[in-house]
Amino acid sequence: MGVNFAAATAVQSIGDGRYGATVHDGWDIGGNANGGYLMAIAVRAMSEEIGRPPLTVTGHYLRPAPAGDCEIDVTTIRSGRRLATASATLSMGGKATLTLLATFGDQAPGGPSRQMEEPVELPAWEDSAAPPPSTEGPKPELMNRIDLRMHPDDSGFRDGQPSGRAEIRGWFALADAEPIDAIALMLAADAFPPPVFNSGLPVAWAPTVELTVHVRGVPAPGPLRCAFRSRFIHDGLLDEEGEIWDSTGTLVCQSRQLALTPR
Amino acid sequence: MGVNFAAATAVQSIGDGRYGATVHDGWDIGGNANGGYLMAIAVRAMSEEIGRPPLTVTGHYLRPAPAGDCEIDVTTIRSGRRLATASATLSMGGKATLTLLATFGDQAPGGPSRQMEEPVELPAWEDSAAPPPSTEGPKPELMNRIDLRMHPDDSGFRDGQPSGRAEIRGWFALADAEPIDAIALMLAADAFPPPVFNSGLPVAWAPTVELTVHVRGVPAPGPLRCAFRSRFIHDGLLDEEGEIWDSTGTLVCQSRQLALTPR
Repeated sequence: MGVNFAAATAVQSIGDGRYGATVHDGWDIGGNANGGYLMAIAVRAMSEEIGRPPLTVTGHYLRPAPAGDCEIDVTTIRSGRRLATASATLSMGGKATLTLLATFGDQAPGGPSRQMEEPVELPAWEDSAAPPPSTEGPKPELMNRIDLRMHPDDSGFRDGQPSGRAEIRGWFALADAEPIDAIALMLAADAFPPPVFNSGLPVAWAPTVELTVHVRGVPAPGPLRCAFRSRFIHDGLLDEEGEIWDSTGTLVCQSRQLALTPR
Repeated sequence: MGVNFAAATAVQSIGDGRYGATVHDGWDIGGNANGGYLMAIAVRAMSEEIGRPPLTVTGHYLRPAPAGDCEIDVTTIRSGRRLATASATLSMGGKATLTLLATFGDQAPGGPSRQMEEPVELPAWEDSAAPPPSTEGPKPELMNRIDLRMHPDDSGFRDGQPSGRAEIRGWFALADAEPIDAIALMLAADAFPPPVFNSGLPVAWAPTVELTVHVRGVPAPGPLRCAFRSRFIHDGLLDEEGEIWDSTGTLVCQSRQLALTPR
């Protein structure tokens, strides 16, 4: 059991740009909150303070985040007609855990338009099974909160058969078809296993240093098509970039992160 | 005439994490300082405060930056063994002009390594001419400070002949072969004309909302190979992402920005 995404990212204003929230059990990998989930909590507080939805968010991850109470301190840096910019720090036990810089504003339909790439091709959602439990270790609790359906060519790493390409494609939805808003895109941008797991390189995990999420549209109802890849892995760091499309084929999110490559 | 990059980005500590600097004439496009140049000034101050070179920098652009005095206020958020994170705001006339969040640390050679893409192919530096003055309007003063040599297939937009692909490739160097350090990569990441100019879409300029630069290596001496593209243009916004390789073929920088598309 557990709470849904909206409840798990709820925030309460305690005045002066400060918000209280709870990092919930069940949104973690091995006891450390998923980075996209943690970002979503902070962005919920920032968005409430600013009064507009997020357009571009950058988070730098400072410490692991166990379940428990947290506080988000939001500072409005500039509030203009079209855009507003704010910084925030999410702290746990008095220690800065995640620090962010973000610009907020409503989508502005219209203007010149060109899409150089088509939505990633996937087997139909209905025909895709949620992956069976891995043969290696327990299923992360997070996978009960979200409904990930990986492309069958990209899921072999879970059983020791990496594809050799540092890429993971698949469908993303929240459990019980909970609607996906701009803030839930933060979670979608960091919910899949690291694509480096398909590279065959000896990388055991990929802790995020920095994650930037660009909201490029408000998702239409339905599961999201996602593609993530690492193109450059060296000197103890890797990139991971992603595109997320909604059910109408509109690009709704781009992400890029810089992560460490411990063995 | 004018000062070189090192002098144009010099900062002086005035205590308590505050630095004074000057936004110099000659590093602008039509009187507004180039975004990469402005970021370089702020990152110079942050790097001096932290005592380490930048690894990942995000800047949000709040106001145009005319030539003149500026002040950078740096706040250290966390200083760890491997990485240190700081925020900063560059102000002019008491108004926040650029606000940043960045993580600093030395490159850590070794570890797993894979490069999924080769350096961009360009005609040899020696065979590439600095482009002749455009037939449309004066040459930006910035082009006297840097030595950009665009791929001949990508420079036609300057004479009303866009390639139709939202892409610009070319060489980057500082004038007089001034060495390029990690901070100069901020400039390189934003020095080329917007690739959307090659799209044929009616976009007159592309003011940056957010720019993130990942430093992936310290450049070896010599000019840099650069490739920039916009893949998704819609709803008044575009992405622009780039890769920069040094003379040994090492990827030294990745960039991505979100920009507005006014007519």
